[in-house]
Amino acid sequence: MIPSDRTVRILDTTLRDGEQAPGVSLSPDEKVEIARALERAGVSTIEAGSACTGTGERRAISRVTDLDLEARVTSFCRGLTGDVDLALECDVDGVHIVVPSSDRHVEGKVGTSLGDNLVTTAELVEYATDHDLWVEVIGEDGSRADLDYLAELAETALDAGADRFCFADTVGHTGPEHTAKAVSRLAELGPVSAHTHDDLGLGVANALAAVAAGADLIHCTVDGLGERAGNVALEEVAIALSHVYDIDTVDLEELYDLAQTVSRATGVQLPPNKAVVGENAFTHESGIHTDGTLKDDKMYEPYAPETVGRERRLALGKHTGRAGVEATLAEHGVEATDDAVAEIAARVTELGDRGRRVTDADLLAIAEDVTGDDRERMVDLLDVQATSGGAVPTASVRLEVDGEQRVASGTGSGPVDAAVSAIREAIGSRADAELESYHVDAVTGGTDAVVTVEVTMGRDDRSVTVARSEADITRASVDAMVDALDRLLATEEKPFAPADD
Amino acid sequence: MIPSDRTVRILDTTLRDGEQAPGVSLSPDEKVEIARALERAGVSTIEAGSACTGTGERRAISRVTDLDLEARVTSFCRGLTGDVDLALECDVDGVHIVVPSSDRHVEGKVGTSLGDNLVTTAELVEYATDHDLWVEVIGEDGSRADLDYLAELAETALDAGADRFCFADTVGHTGPEHTAKAVSRLAELGPVSAHTHDDLGLGVANALAAVAAGADLIHCTVDGLGERAGNVALEEVAIALSHVYDIDTVDLEELYDLAQTVSRATGVQLPPNKAVVGENAFTHESGIHTDGTLKDDKMYEPYAPETVGRERRLALGKHTGRAGVEATLAEHGVEATDDAVAEIAARVTELGDRGRRVTDADLLAIAEDVTGDDRERMVDLLDVQATSGGAVPTASVRLEVDGEQRVASGTGSGPVDAAVSAIREAIGSRADAELESYHVDAVTGGTDAVVTVEVTMGRDDRSVTVARSEADITRASVDAMVDALDRLLATEEKPFAPADD
Repeated sequence: MIPSDRTVRILDTTLRDGEQAPGVSLSPDEKVEIARALERAGVSTIEAGSACTGTGERRAISRVTDLDLEARVTSFCRGLTGDVDLALECDVDGVHIVVPSSDRHVEGKVGTSLGDNLVTTAELVEYATDHDLWVEVIGEDGSRADLDYLAELAETALDAGADRFCFADTVGHTGPEHTAKAVSRLAELGPVSAHTHDDLGLGVANALAAVAAGADLIHCTVDGLGERAGNVALEEVAIALSHVYDIDTVDLEELYDLAQTVSRATGVQLPPNKAVVGENAFTHESGIHTDGTLKDDKMYEPYAPETVGRERRLALGKHTGRAGVEATLAEHGVEATDDAVAEIAARVTELGDRGRRVTDADLLAIAEDVTGDDRERMVDLLDVQATSGGAVPTASVRLEVDGEQRVASGTGSGPVDAAVSAIREAIGSRADAELESYHVDAVTGGTDAVVTVEVTMGRDDRSVTVARSEADITRASVDAMVDALDRLLATEEKPFAPADD
Repeated sequence: MIPSDRTVRILDTTLRDGEQAPGVSLSPDEKVEIARALERAGVSTIEAGSACTGTGERRAISRVTDLDLEARVTSFCRGLTGDVDLALECDVDGVHIVVPSSDRHVEGKVGTSLGDNLVTTAELVEYATDHDLWVEVIGEDGSRADLDYLAELAETALDAGADRFCFADTVGHTGPEHTAKAVSRLAELGPVSAHTHDDLGLGVANALAAVAAGADLIHCTVDGLGERAGNVALEEVAIALSHVYDIDTVDLEELYDLAQTVSRATGVQLPPNKAVVGENAFTHESGIHTDGTLKDDKMYEPYAPETVGRERRLALGKHTGRAGVEATLAEHGVEATDDAVAEIAARVTELGDRGRRVTDADLLAIAEDVTGDDRERMVDLLDVQATSGGAVPTASVRLEVDGEQRVASGTGSGPVDAAVSAIREAIGSRADAELESYHVDAVTGGTDAVVTVEVTMGRDDRSVTVARSEADITRASVDAMVDALDRLLATEEKPFAPADD
């Protein structure tokens, strides 16, 4: 058990190890934006990059050190004094000097001997501390190192003046028992950090084992980005330490904003089932869970979503029960008898049985069918055509709006964007509905793959979500948008009558 | 430490708790396909669904029981004999009877008393065992229950004839210490399972703590799907038990195929940094890692990718070093001097510094520029136009192929697909290049968001990947495809000369 009076700090390496994730590159502006978000969250140390990567990287690190943050800003350095010099050029507060610690890395990778490696390490630490740098020595591949040698390496580094030694499970190889054993041994020698990877899904387990054994600085990345399966996720370490052990590390309310910032900058989408920051982390669909949550927020949540800067969400789907149906209908001002609600819930499940995503627009259509409350369509799509690929994507639409045909055209940045302008033009100024979100699922497979589009449109304080799946992205997007508009405008009594009528 | 002679089995609940993930619905065919993949992997128990959900769900469960698998096939049941009857209709081998165990769930959710809950539980177990069912009782919200009451509930269930009792961290609330304490206590009473969720990122840590404390059946879902942040991931539990504790559970080589099957069926994309099954789990980009891996496979991997049915991949990007550049150039039959390789690597880093994804096509273009080996373009795009939204998406292209202009048209299922047919038509039958993969990143934001398309085309045993980001999806796709074609065809000496020349 970790006592709650332990002090644990977070070192964020999103800008270094996180950026080393295949396919991820951050521009200097993006590094600055992420550094600011990390500062707001209150991490103790920001590893801003690896100065030896190149001049662009050094410019980016310098941009971060120029911010003059509360957090310590550092650079990664290979075991070369030249790397320390490059880090100094960026005016960092400290460096992480990476030296090999396992036989494989000492002999096979760096091509030195165990003895010489100790000598070099001491020299590097002295060089860096002589330049007034905070110094952490990382024993690379420490989890596969001989523990006696790892301790000797740590002792050498600390004796030479290093501020701390880091136990690194570089390849995500070990489990919590070995982590605890190694960190306990190292913690007898001086301050210890832990750097864990998630190749076995044990990133958090090892980080906590390290804390329990005496580590007080944990290397993390936002969203768990990093080499291979990534580093341990900052948001998971922070919430686990807070919720289970009552230990504060960062400002939890900043976690969601931080995750979104990094996801946007890196282009790596957050998986819906990601702890703390995934789209579904506080979403309830199944009947039992929705019903329970409506009775008592805490019924199916370990902690309130607001703790991490989020909100609870109820979703519709195959497992939706009557309570969820009733709650969603109420949001749209629809009342139904108990029998009707039961029938609607059964029909929603049927839709789900066919593997379909269910939105509130689907629910409303089912409700009308079940209750017999027929509704005239207010907006209908008669035709749409969009050209794309050339200089100016252009589209035309023919809509029937409140019984009257309207034709309009528009241009945009792509076929869908052009079609949206055409729809806006056709609907006219009275239609003050806004496109609140437009999402297209990632497409994998061939160019003929079915594309799923989800559109949310809002008007005043009401919003409607419609999903459509078609091979033609233009058609799917326009269909979804027109259906959403139709739903939103249909609630007005005479929405298109002149204002002075 | 978990001794390696422990027997641990996997209960897979992808088809029940996994399907309860918001937005996920599986058709009966999809359930059958996943069940077959689970059987190939060798899970001990397949929870095929929740029979009370509806007739469609019962048809799907019956389809799975009809397969006559080696694995035990079960249904989830609420604490109602009627639910057990519905499960029996599907001819399942066993049931999971879920009864409340925390005060909040006993009183607040089910509205019964602690005493009455014990009586009901015993009656339900007797009812189910009387019908020759294998019975597991799940104490819902067990991690928030009073431990004395939880033990009393387990004892009641086991005395009434239940085959096992499940410790459920239903809301992903607890840590490994409490899990160990609770499971140790329960394991004194009879066989214990563990059901863990990942709300705190502790799904795997708690599953392992449960095993160490005596649990011998672990509830998992493929890809970690499930309510909120999801259940613990099957692939992570299996690889952690195998790699760290030398305990076999399932056939690890099936894990990747299983993950892909579930991702396709549910529509939930695998995050690139997902342990074991994510796209990047065995991908190396950074110079240090690529160089190390080229020297020794094990340098930066905890276990060989083949262990879980995968292959290693080297990627290009901002952190690519000389070894990675040299290896990729060699794949394309390009040789360069050491100086040229260093210059090319620096230019690749510059591209990455600007936040750009780097593909092998980018690398080849840089290499030509650096070495001065100019190359005539073989295929150039002069014009493209695609119409979409209407009944028949149609496109035309004008290409310059080996100095000659060619115009062609085509139709398809959407604007991009139509443009692809037009390109095929224009290039003609000699161009036997194949579109190996077409991927579009998910689009979030507005309809004017930049879309990133990645195209891989192959010809004989060579393939080229090109990425393009533009607001117009048609333009981005066609540009990427033409560039890839150009690269592939340029290697032939006279690719478009008549065959008898």
